[in-house]
Amino acid sequence: MRSHFCGELNESFIGKRVTLCGWAHSRRDHGGVIFIDLRDREGVVQTVFDPSKKEPFAAAESVRTEFVLRIQGSVRARPAGTENAHLRTGKVEVVADSIEILNRAEALPFQLDEEGLSEQVRLTYRYLDLRRDFMQKNLRLRHQITRTLRRFLEDRHFTEIETPMLTKSTPEGARDYLVPSRTNPGHFFALPQSPQLFKQLLMVAGFERYFQITRCFRDEDLRADRQPEFTQLDIETSFLDENGVMGLMEEMLRALFKDVLNVELPNPIPRMSYDEAVRRFGSDRPDLRVPLELVDVGDLMKNVEFKVFAGPANNPAGRVAALRVPKGGELPRSQIDGYTVFVGQYGAKGLAYIKVNDAARGRDGLQSPILKFLPDEVIAGILQRTGAQSGDLIFFGADTAKVVNDALGALRLKLGDDLKLKQEAWKMIWVVDFPMFDYDADAKRWVALHHPFTSPKTEDVGRVDIDPANVKARAYDMVLNGSEIGGGSIRIHRVDVQEKVFATLGIGPEEARAKFGFLLDALRYGAPPHGGIAFGLDRLCALMSGVDSIRDVIAFPKTQKAACLMTEAPSPVDEMQLRELHIRLRKPPEKTAGESAGEKSEQKV
Amino acid sequence: MRSHFCGELNESFIGKRVTLCGWAHSRRDHGGVIFIDLRDREGVVQTVFDPSKKEPFAAAESVRTEFVLRIQGSVRARPAGTENAHLRTGKVEVVADSIEILNRAEALPFQLDEEGLSEQVRLTYRYLDLRRDFMQKNLRLRHQITRTLRRFLEDRHFTEIETPMLTKSTPEGARDYLVPSRTNPGHFFALPQSPQLFKQLLMVAGFERYFQITRCFRDEDLRADRQPEFTQLDIETSFLDENGVMGLMEEMLRALFKDVLNVELPNPIPRMSYDEAVRRFGSDRPDLRVPLELVDVGDLMKNVEFKVFAGPANNPAGRVAALRVPKGGELPRSQIDGYTVFVGQYGAKGLAYIKVNDAARGRDGLQSPILKFLPDEVIAGILQRTGAQSGDLIFFGADTAKVVNDALGALRLKLGDDLKLKQEAWKMIWVVDFPMFDYDADAKRWVALHHPFTSPKTEDVGRVDIDPANVKARAYDMVLNGSEIGGGSIRIHRVDVQEKVFATLGIGPEEARAKFGFLLDALRYGAPPHGGIAFGLDRLCALMSGVDSIRDVIAFPKTQKAACLMTEAPSPVDEMQLRELHIRLRKPPEKTAGESAGEKSEQKV
Repeated sequence: MRSHFCGELNESFIGKRVTLCGWAHSRRDHGGVIFIDLRDREGVVQTVFDPSKKEPFAAAESVRTEFVLRIQGSVRARPAGTENAHLRTGKVEVVADSIEILNRAEALPFQLDEEGLSEQVRLTYRYLDLRRDFMQKNLRLRHQITRTLRRFLEDRHFTEIETPMLTKSTPEGARDYLVPSRTNPGHFFALPQSPQLFKQLLMVAGFERYFQITRCFRDEDLRADRQPEFTQLDIETSFLDENGVMGLMEEMLRALFKDVLNVELPNPIPRMSYDEAVRRFGSDRPDLRVPLELVDVGDLMKNVEFKVFAGPANNPAGRVAALRVPKGGELPRSQIDGYTVFVGQYGAKGLAYIKVNDAARGRDGLQSPILKFLPDEVIAGILQRTGAQSGDLIFFGADTAKVVNDALGALRLKLGDDLKLKQEAWKMIWVVDFPMFDYDADAKRWVALHHPFTSPKTEDVGRVDIDPANVKARAYDMVLNGSEIGGGSIRIHRVDVQEKVFATLGIGPEEARAKFGFLLDALRYGAPPHGGIAFGLDRLCALMSGVDSIRDVIAFPKTQKAACLMTEAPSPVDEMQLRELHIRLRKPPEKTAGESAGEKSEQKV
Repeated sequence: MRSHFCGELNESFIGKRVTLCGWAHSRRDHGGVIFIDLRDREGVVQTVFDPSKKEPFAAAESVRTEFVLRIQGSVRARPAGTENAHLRTGKVEVVADSIEILNRAEALPFQLDEEGLSEQVRLTYRYLDLRRDFMQKNLRLRHQITRTLRRFLEDRHFTEIETPMLTKSTPEGARDYLVPSRTNPGHFFALPQSPQLFKQLLMVAGFERYFQITRCFRDEDLRADRQPEFTQLDIETSFLDENGVMGLMEEMLRALFKDVLNVELPNPIPRMSYDEAVRRFGSDRPDLRVPLELVDVGDLMKNVEFKVFAGPANNPAGRVAALRVPKGGELPRSQIDGYTVFVGQYGAKGLAYIKVNDAARGRDGLQSPILKFLPDEVIAGILQRTGAQSGDLIFFGADTAKVVNDALGALRLKLGDDLKLKQEAWKMIWVVDFPMFDYDADAKRWVALHHPFTSPKTEDVGRVDIDPANVKARAYDMVLNGSEIGGGSIRIHRVDVQEKVFATLGIGPEEARAKFGFLLDALRYGAPPHGGIAFGLDRLCALMSGVDSIRDVIAFPKTQKAACLMTEAPSPVDEMQLRELHIRLRKPPEKTAGESAGEKSEQKV
């Protein structure tokens, strides 16, 4: 139907006849002549209709924006002075001698170049939203990313193997999406939260190097930027230790950033222990673009009379930390009050601070409601340890370690944004040496920080059941600009260790057999040492595209209420369908089958 | 952990030190020396333990089959006369000086080289079944196939775009798998039977060339070789007509067969109309490896007194056809009786035949219970039209056209197998010119032969609502050796045509709006002419691997009862989970949560 793409025409085509297909991006009538900018996936070119050619001119007169057209004509140079430097094809135009209207278009509910569209409109008319240059670029970049990742792994003899979508519920922390079985009444499949156990079994099967780009599912209450279905680059290897896996993955990411963005990532990518990350940044996924750090001052506070500080300083589970904000002395009181409210969301009961007006004058150069509680030597210690300069502000957090880390960690990021301290950079690090277990005080039991199949450090294996608090895991997370983009571990390949970990997690032999019998069996028949990683592809694509929301790198995303505004899924179904699946509703749906399932007013982009 | 793969060692490594990891494929003690064949993903190599090296020798003595080992040593030529020509590494061996047992293995439930394993055993211990060379090769070939297809499409500027798995029930013929929504009580997602509407919307969005290798789902009663979840290579293009799509797909398949199997497919791939395929082979997916054809003889039978033939010959919906079997005269009576039973499964009430003992002698050279009903000129007509030779057998079918086509079409294939008439060949054809609609006599309504989004032939558009029986579709199926491996069509891009097709199918405006409102809207906003195709990847891989069952090219398949014997999915779930999903069981499951969901005795491979 076409001889060329609109977007590829340039001066080298002058004099040639072309047949183009595409959309009427715009139409202008000027000096008795009609100009139609024709758009296809490769770009836009100007076509010209002269009234002397009656039939095509008349047809062109009926064209409206977004009509689908087939235009034949000859390429010529644009008259001097009418070139468009903003357009790749801007030095030429196509003099049309024939036009066919392939399809008409009603007036669109919005203009393609309209800004600030609501997410409700964008997602309801997603097929139009996707026509916009912004979304075309995002989805094409996403394909370029997956293509580069795939080829890298294929070139290193990884085999892509598909694992089931209809599988068994495995307790990996989140709620499963369930699928009722018709042929096994009362039984359910679960959609996979990850192919974790299947990929481990592929290692037992001897594939040694597996990968898959695959959909995963979590039925969670969707926080800011999550989707009920998301895509994972899933990788597993045999006979590699953590350095082997991390080395290969670094190589892959360096190739990816180089090929797709022409960005050179460091070699090697720096590593930081979990303990250090939490101590310095209050988070195990620190954003290193923000040049602010938490500094421990608990030892200075042990004997002060100020109970707010002395309490946590003397509590083994407590923490007292300072966060110096260079030039923060200029912050108005109202903004500091705002930050106090902000850290309150993380459980902090207040936000103490000291303004450093003149660092050289000691106590007299400072300004703070808490100064009176602090002896001179403590003040000197704070100034020295934080390295505070005149004009700076020092915030303090004092509470349980968790509250201080969460509150000051979040404040650190907020200050980075508010004060524009954030570097323009790709800050990638590995976070390593994670604790194996975390104590759930409510449930009064140990839970796995990663998942129950993660191997403890070799030197800690003997301690798993007697001192779980001090067992480290062979786990590693990859963090990019404060987002965890990947996480993995060396897995347990010995059945006795796996049983011990299950026991520590309160999973008795019977439950372990019922839920994971096939894994325990597999570990008995010659399971190789193995480990791997999974990357969150949506997040990685969003970061590399420079967009804030993963919804901008997904063709048909769901809203935060897990609904599709375009198709109106989920929707009511026939009673007959439920009957076949041996289930019934607890109470009838509030809406009838013809009506919308999704909410109609929605969060902003 | 390793310096080389076992399978890559050869004479060029002689004298080199190597570190290998893998499985003890076998252990032999011979002349005081221990030989361990070590296997990894690249192959097997012999390692040798000499009693003079006490420590490794003692460790090697404890090794049993399938132990996971790390062995260090030096490569040397095998002593003359002990080379193994069957092994790629058969001219060398590794003299071991160190061995580390990475993991032990209990005795396997079966030997890896055991033949005739039941599917129950194979699927229960799939992680061991996958260790076998046969399955390793199948899954690696599958990856080679997807890799080749992907790169072909990527090199032609197709964009891979992911479409949702949690979507809306669309009536495409089969039963949906449903997923209850937790956040929208009483509402359900459906798992996609195909991304049909999403890929059409991506064309409306202007992507022009889309593909995706994606999972699809059908909750059907599983016939011989179906799976509840299957994988599709899904393709859609804009501004191409059927010749454009078919041409591109042929090019892709030729590249695939050349690259993966070194097979040259014909150029162009032959096309056959639906009518011709059914007339000559009784099927719209004819297996052209079998050199037998149906021949119409109804016109000869119109006036015979034999009602069994005359009835269908005079019925517009009837058919009388002959199937000549070269040298079929040698078939024993018992086998012919067997075929009579066989065609009975397809509704045939009998299987008339004529044995051609001596073709030159006319009626006197023939042998058949029906001869007496047939006048000489009819017999002469049959012999001439079928081209029967002495020694041949002619079978007859006379019934409704459907029964005759089904019965003789199936008999044709069975004879091809039984009489070893099938060529060793790759017989690929396009079947085209399908009817648009099929009349469902039970439901008394027209149904779409492909799907409701398929475009009628341009010249038939005006007839859609007034003469649906004679409307042909712009659809095409790709058939390989009697299997439909792909099917597609040019789609409807005009909203008025889509509405007319819906109306013909009995989908009124209100229902169309409720189910497909978003599609109808999309067609109004500048939908380009578009069309595409989908290939069944499992089937294609099975054919290219030369295996009978798609289960041999799927890592973790389900049984015919849609269960996973390894993980025992589907399984009962907690009452709490159901409560969160706002559903309850119609009656309690018969088994308790710890027990198996799957059946335990199963079909053969």
